[in-house]
Amino acid sequence: MSSPPALSALIDALRALPGIGPRSAQRLAYHLMQHDRAAAQRLACALQHAVERLRHCARCNTFTEAPLCKTCTDPARDAALLCVVETPADQLILEQTLSYRGLYFVLMGHLNPIDGIGPREIHFERLLKRADDGVVREVILATNFTSESEATAHYLGQLLKARGLTTTRLARGVPLGAELEYTDPGTVARALLDRRLICDS
Amino acid sequence: MSSPPALSALIDALRALPGIGPRSAQRLAYHLMQHDRAAAQRLACALQHAVERLRHCARCNTFTEAPLCKTCTDPARDAALLCVVETPADQLILEQTLSYRGLYFVLMGHLNPIDGIGPREIHFERLLKRADDGVVREVILATNFTSESEATAHYLGQLLKARGLTTTRLARGVPLGAELEYTDPGTVARALLDRRLICDS
Repeated sequence: MSSPPALSALIDALRALPGIGPRSAQRLAYHLMQHDRAAAQRLACALQHAVERLRHCARCNTFTEAPLCKTCTDPARDAALLCVVETPADQLILEQTLSYRGLYFVLMGHLNPIDGIGPREIHFERLLKRADDGVVREVILATNFTSESEATAHYLGQLLKARGLTTTRLARGVPLGAELEYTDPGTVARALLDRRLICDS
Repeated sequence: MSSPPALSALIDALRALPGIGPRSAQRLAYHLMQHDRAAAQRLACALQHAVERLRHCARCNTFTEAPLCKTCTDPARDAALLCVVETPADQLILEQTLSYRGLYFVLMGHLNPIDGIGPREIHFERLLKRADDGVVREVILATNFTSESEATAHYLGQLLKARGLTTTRLARGVPLGAELEYTDPGTVARALLDRRLICDS
């Protein structure tokens, strides 16, 4: 006994998704075919449209349907500031702070030599060219604070500084609302090292 | 700032999958669009084909592309035996035992009043009609052994017996290769209650 070909093909295609094993793929396929064919149809169309329409912004590398994304074409943005993030989700968080009005460059990943992701895969050359446009004054490295992303920021920082660009990194320290007693010692140590002079104001 | 419409639509469509939350949907969408557009394309086609081609076998209710599935049209099968399972995956496991040559009925679920799944949703009437064809001698209830599936088997058993059909249930007991010390007391209690007379052979 074997599954009908259309069902086997669906299970195989679902297995290609990251984090979906053979059992989950089978369950997802049964669920969609038994209980939610409309969702399956919608997903098929959404995938098809996304594959056809989404490309990378020629300037900041994020996903866009036009040659340039909305942020890059916004004249109200400060073109002297360039913030480097790993993913569009990270860019979204920075936008939600309402405290940044510069432009972005989205790496779409971080250095990960074990998975074969080197400077070429995350577009270092394009970023360097972008930062070298004569308008950018400061590059803010806003990659994550995991070890691989820190390494990415460090490596990028070296390259950018060598080109004479002011390069900064998001501050590390104690998060808002945190109690020292429950904060990890590494974070407190960093906050101590990076302590700020209190200004009169 | 907002995502391009094709990306938002993809994230929304992925969120409709069971077990996929907003974050996972976003990550899946980024992954597919950044690293594996071929997989996205394959999945779109597989979904589309499955929606168009898969239907339910008119006899046993499993997924099939033809009006009747391969198992139901196999003349080597013993039509006097009908095994009731919850999903095609359960049917596959029974086939892998190589110890069953009868036919099947696939409920595609179990009774679950909380989720609004009653006898109508899992095709009890079709099953009763199928079992009442005059050829079926024995109905083997092979639903799972969780409480909802046990309730399903119990309820079905009552209905089938009322029609004068021989109705059996898979045996409960200690699994192959198990050590009693590490088996849960409920299972051992059941094995004790259902103990078998040792025959000379």
